[in-house]
Amino acid sequence: MKILVANPNTSTGVTDRLVAAGKLVASPGTELLPMTAPRGVPYIATRAEAAIGGAMMLEMLAERRGTFDAAIVAAFGDPGLGGARELFDFPVVGMAEAAMLVACTLGRKFAIVSFAKALEPWFAEIVEWHGLSGRCAAIRTLDEAFQSIDDVQNEKEQVLIDLAIGTVRNDGADVVILAGAPLAGLANKIRERVPVPLVDGIQAAVTMAEGLVRLNPRKATAGTYRRPAAKDSKGLSTALANVIGHRDA
Amino acid sequence: MKILVANPNTSTGVTDRLVAAGKLVASPGTELLPMTAPRGVPYIATRAEAAIGGAMMLEMLAERRGTFDAAIVAAFGDPGLGGARELFDFPVVGMAEAAMLVACTLGRKFAIVSFAKALEPWFAEIVEWHGLSGRCAAIRTLDEAFQSIDDVQNEKEQVLIDLAIGTVRNDGADVVILAGAPLAGLANKIRERVPVPLVDGIQAAVTMAEGLVRLNPRKATAGTYRRPAAKDSKGLSTALANVIGHRDA
Amino acid sequence: MKILVANPNTSTGVTDRLVAAGKLVASPGTELLPMTAPRGVPYIATRAEAAIGGAMMLEMLAERRGTFDAAIVAAFGDPGLGGARELFDFPVVGMAEAAMLVACTLGRKFAIVSFAKALEPWFAEIVEWHGLSGRCAAIRTLDEAFQSIDDVQNEKEQVLIDLAIGTVRNDGADVVILAGAPLAGLANKIRERVPVPLVDGIQAAVTMAEGLVRLNPRKATAGTYRRPAAKDSKGLSTALANVIGHRDA
Amino acid sequence: MKILVANPNTSTGVTDRLVAAGKLVASPGTELLPMTAPRGVPYIATRAEAAIGGAMMLEMLAERRGTFDAAIVAAFGDPGLGGARELFDFPVVGMAEAAMLVACTLGRKFAIVSFAKALEPWFAEIVEWHGLSGRCAAIRTLDEAFQSIDDVQNEKEQVLIDLAIGTVRNDGADVVILAGAPLAGLANKIRERVPVPLVDGIQAAVTMAEGLVRLNPRKATAGTYRRPAAKDSKGLSTALANVIGHRDA
Amino acid sequence: MKILVANPNTSTGVTDRLVAAGKLVASPGTELLPMTAPRGVPYIATRAEAAIGGAMMLEMLAERRGTFDAAIVAAFGDPGLGGARELFDFPVVGMAEAAMLVACTLGRKFAIVSFAKALEPWFAEIVEWHGLSGRCAAIRTLDEAFQSIDDVQNEKEQVLIDLAIGTVRNDGADVVILAGAPLAGLANKIRERVPVPLVDGIQAAVTMAEGLVRLNPRKATAGTYRRPAAKDSKGLSTALANVIGHRDA
Amino acid sequence: MKILVANPNTSTGVTDRLVAAGKLVASPGTELLPMTAPRGVPYIATRAEAAIGGAMMLEMLAERRGTFDAAIVAAFGDPGLGGARELFDFPVVGMAEAAMLVACTLGRKFAIVSFAKALEPWFAEIVEWHGLSGRCAAIRTLDEAFQSIDDVQNEKEQVLIDLAIGTVRNDGADVVILAGAPLAGLANKIRERVPVPLVDGIQAAVTMAEGLVRLNPRKATAGTYRRPAAKDSKGLSTALANVIGHRDA
Repeated sequence: MKILVANPNTSTGVTDRLVAAGKLVASPGTELLPMTAPRGVPYIATRAEAAIGGAMMLEMLAERRGTFDAAIVAAFGDPGLGGARELFDFPVVGMAEAAMLVACTLGRKFAIVSFAKALEPWFAEIVEWHGLSGRCAAIRTLDEAFQSIDDVQNEKEQVLIDLAIGTVRNDGADVVILAGAPLAGLANKIRERVPVPLVDGIQAAVTMAEGLVRLNPRKATAGTYRRPAAKDSKGLSTALANVIGHRDA
Repeated sequence: MKILVANPNTSTGVTDRLVAAGKLVASPGTELLPMTAPRGVPYIATRAEAAIGGAMMLEMLAERRGTFDAAIVAAFGDPGLGGARELFDFPVVGMAEAAMLVACTLGRKFAIVSFAKALEPWFAEIVEWHGLSGRCAAIRTLDEAFQSIDDVQNEKEQVLIDLAIGTVRNDGADVVILAGAPLAGLANKIRERVPVPLVDGIQAAVTMAEGLVRLNPRKATAGTYRRPAAKDSKGLSTALANVIGHRDA
Repeated sequence: MKILVANPNTSTGVTDRLVAAGKLVASPGTELLPMTAPRGVPYIATRAEAAIGGAMMLEMLAERRGTFDAAIVAAFGDPGLGGARELFDFPVVGMAEAAMLVACTLGRKFAIVSFAKALEPWFAEIVEWHGLSGRCAAIRTLDEAFQSIDDVQNEKEQVLIDLAIGTVRNDGADVVILAGAPLAGLANKIRERVPVPLVDGIQAAVTMAEGLVRLNPRKATAGTYRRPAAKDSKGLSTALANVIGHRDA
Repeated sequence: MKILVANPNTSTGVTDRLVAAGKLVASPGTELLPMTAPRGVPYIATRAEAAIGGAMMLEMLAERRGTFDAAIVAAFGDPGLGGARELFDFPVVGMAEAAMLVACTLGRKFAIVSFAKALEPWFAEIVEWHGLSGRCAAIRTLDEAFQSIDDVQNEKEQVLIDLAIGTVRNDGADVVILAGAPLAGLANKIRERVPVPLVDGIQAAVTMAEGLVRLNPRKATAGTYRRPAAKDSKGLSTALANVIGHRDA
Repeated sequence: MKILVANPNTSTGVTDRLVAAGKLVASPGTELLPMTAPRGVPYIATRAEAAIGGAMMLEMLAERRGTFDAAIVAAFGDPGLGGARELFDFPVVGMAEAAMLVACTLGRKFAIVSFAKALEPWFAEIVEWHGLSGRCAAIRTLDEAFQSIDDVQNEKEQVLIDLAIGTVRNDGADVVILAGAPLAGLANKIRERVPVPLVDGIQAAVTMAEGLVRLNPRKATAGTYRRPAAKDSKGLSTALANVIGHRDA
Repeated sequence: MKILVANPNTSTGVTDRLVAAGKLVASPGTELLPMTAPRGVPYIATRAEAAIGGAMMLEMLAERRGTFDAAIVAAFGDPGLGGARELFDFPVVGMAEAAMLVACTLGRKFAIVSFAKALEPWFAEIVEWHGLSGRCAAIRTLDEAFQSIDDVQNEKEQVLIDLAIGTVRNDGADVVILAGAPLAGLANKIRERVPVPLVDGIQAAVTMAEGLVRLNPRKATAGTYRRPAAKDSKGLSTALANVIGHRDA
């Protein structure tokens, strides 16, 4: 099966890292298709950037529709996820969503650990949006500068481990989500150095997406994720305008 | 004082209606500046359209910044509100937000009444985002076709009144919000035909925006609405890219 | 327009301070009418005192009804607010209520900072009553003696600033409410020394009350704030007994 | 032991009925002391009347302090309960509180059934104040006129039974509280005609009060029910002023 | 009246201690009947052990049914309580449940203090099950080894007092529950050394059980605690199989 | 990989049906190992029966440990799940848990539809235990007799479809979980006759279990699912006693 890894950030390095980490857990027949946002910011970290990325995500999925079996919204705050579920008929999974749902099977409370303080408000809102605040013990992030986002997981490995252990000791976390694409793959490396299970967002998303493809749910024609009626639009990308206008048959 | 009425829909008729209704309650010295989205859909009604409108809202506010004292996100689901509060230093009020906060001073529970079933999921999410689900008795919408969105408030006046009365009788509403720009101004007309207070979104927003300008709060330099650090971007409108890149002094 | 500032405390000094702070933000045509409780305690700080003040508030509003356009329950815990909304047909706003609603437009989470530990339980209950606990980051109060309640905002200025900053750093507050009449006016003075917006209760209440007068909502004849049926009573003030007995036409 | 049944309504008939129903479950050595409010309304039914009754309750308890082992706030909405727990060192139990706590041991969800629509908002607020909304299936009341409040439980017996059965069938109630003093004693009579356990407020309160006297908890000197510091007051009843001013030794 | 103290732990020493502490508050005519689990673990401390104890509790109550007026599930996490309420027609009270309900009449927030870290997750789940998380300030436990569970309340008396005081100072507790049978009776001894009321689980349970017997509620024939239909089973104790199969007349 | 399908009911027919439905979505290399409870009831439907099944589940998993890669608690209410996660080091997934987590990726609100009224209270408690009440629109069950539990999905197919459609129309469900082993496989058959996605519990559990095996999380040595310390026991099955006593190396 083919799973689109739709990264709403503009940095292809981030996309590569996500795909590499995802491949470690993908089933034999699964192919991960990389896609990187053509417009936006290199790394989404705030609500404003997520708003931009959310609109972009819809454009990206419209662009590639028909070439894959399921899609992953490959940024931890799941920008555009709700809208994507309305517009399209393939399964879509958010990286934050998948990480949290998997974490729920491994502990009563999960913590989210990430690399930048600026991410906290956005992450807090996505936890609430998914209705999982009651299962979230804490969101903790690095509060110090780092050399490069591409290497932050190596440079700050020990600090991130300490943050994770802190959520277990002080916040009652039973499982820790390492959040954000720059941390993709880290869970495998530090597995034995944190006393609770670790969850990697893209890996969780790959397993959830595979499961959804196998479960093969029908597209809703009622409820809040039914497809909206056809509508005119102005100035949107052709692919997205076609989807919104029901010219995508 | 000058208040920007930023309508993320592309229809100028909707903008005109909003400004007309807002003027009925504005203080003597207040000027309402109309602005209509250059791209998007004529009337936002779903999460997907709200995602598109949210990104557009940031672009609109960036474009006009410096020419007003406060801005109103003039669509009931407040697209882009959180991001706007991060990026800009002027007060921003959402139309849904203002309606609900004013409603809280008029009843224990408010109902939201609007003109299209498709709006319900989006509205439900914005109520939750504002943390006001506990104060919301019900969201009820017209479930029948109408001739024109421009005239829906006249054509369906009695049905909307019946919906409003129904929320009082069956859902325990103490106050009813008439939601969505096409209903702007209706509250004044049907005031005596519903047994509880009615709240008009744009009118509530105008009074809240005026209040904020007079209160003159400082821009946060800490907390979740502090301004994000300068960041590069790709392919965004010049005005928005300048704000995100801190080139807007 | 005329707004009654109904102070359920017996100290006229507190009333004066409230009116002075309120005037700083009132619109040109607005007159603030002071009223001080004839019976009770100099400064309400506990549930027991709030119970006494709540009954007194109804008596005060009954006494002056007909001479103003809107009333402010001018003590932070809003004593008597619910009952006032039942009995009377003019808009009534609580000082805690207004401060919290305005704070909701300035941050995701607000903190409440005040001058005496004894206030915390009462404040916590009023936050809950308004259904806003999910938006409240913390309630923090001075835990040290002060010379005079009339001068506490000067004497303890730095400690109060430190408390406010602490709620931002440790509790995740995006906006800080300076609560309690003895702190009225302080927000204007220390505005630049706290990194998030400050909200002054009486100033928030004045802007909300002005907005309500302009919005001119009808009196409910259904829902929980409809006027109760006429009832006999025994031993109440004449004005209040007349209102309860519907002899106030 | 002696238990004060402090009725904040002015009708002695209601007090008599409460004491009569309470005696049916009191332990051999327990004496129920009746007390009726000297001022207020014959039967509290709204928030405004509860505010008046709450202040009166403190006065009543101050007046009789020293002559009993525990007190019952003998109106279903528990007016003045929080303040009473601050001021006094004897156990105080609310009738709504006791009914709900006992109901929690008999079902997952309780319903509250009473005799007048006007009571619903006040009852809803007391359920929330006690933090028990999650255990409350519904509040249902008679919505029709009756001849006399003194005889309402006989006149409307079948309607009340139907209401109770309806909460079981339609709202998922596992236990039904018959609320309000005019219904005291009814539970015993209709016990076999409703398919779930019934709880009578005064009877629940008597058993809880007896239990508290036997458990003999200490008066808090910390936490939110510690006694407030001595304070001057103006115009209050001598007994209450003495308690507030710590002149009650 | 006769109250069964059904201890799902296998240690008779624990049963003895419970009965001794319970007798201190029991009414003159009340007899406490001890019963100790024939199979299981000496002291339940985890979810796994509670699952084993829950099934055992049903077997124990089935075994002794007909010989008592009410039963106490005499382990703090109330194992088997929900099932017992379905199967049997006598009142059943849980020790955690009774302690929390009584605590609700003594403070706004209760803390739970106990002797072993392993108990925390189980206790947290029982607080949630009872719908009382909103009233729970904290769960704090000893995090150090002790010589013998039978003497832990003496050996660690001062540490437990410090824990209790800490919940008042740091977590806002108004009342402290000393949880777990090994702490039964401790509340009486340290009463004056903690500044808020203490609640002893078995003592609270005895007073609640006595109250229920006097209130004499009917067995539900509807709602979630109605008796399940007769069912076959395999390999269960004869007494329990008879109850489940309705062969217990 | 090998996944144990541990059915805590005593009917092997139910186990067979679960395995058959699970195979339809299992990955090529996955083997589903059936296991049926040796003691208990044919079909768990109440809290009492779930208590018995929960203890049995621990015994079953202890018995077979070492012969599989992950286990499914194959009854919709997940009896024993929490305890299993403490005791064992392999991944364990509950059937209700998996169904709800998968449903969260397909809609904002899920409904649970099942075949017997008696199941509702138990199901409601498991939804709460998983912290997912906010995502649950309704629990609806057949309220009529059927010939045989083995054939209920055929006999009542249309009624079940109507129930499912009703949750979409009346309760706002976006996705429907067909709950309980007797309904396993039904989702595939009626897929096109309900306008929203359907989730089959065992199929969801198989995909979640496969995902967990591929993610390969470590066993917690801290947090609430760390393994409890070794403990003596009395009268338990040898396998379970060995696990509890740490004699299972």
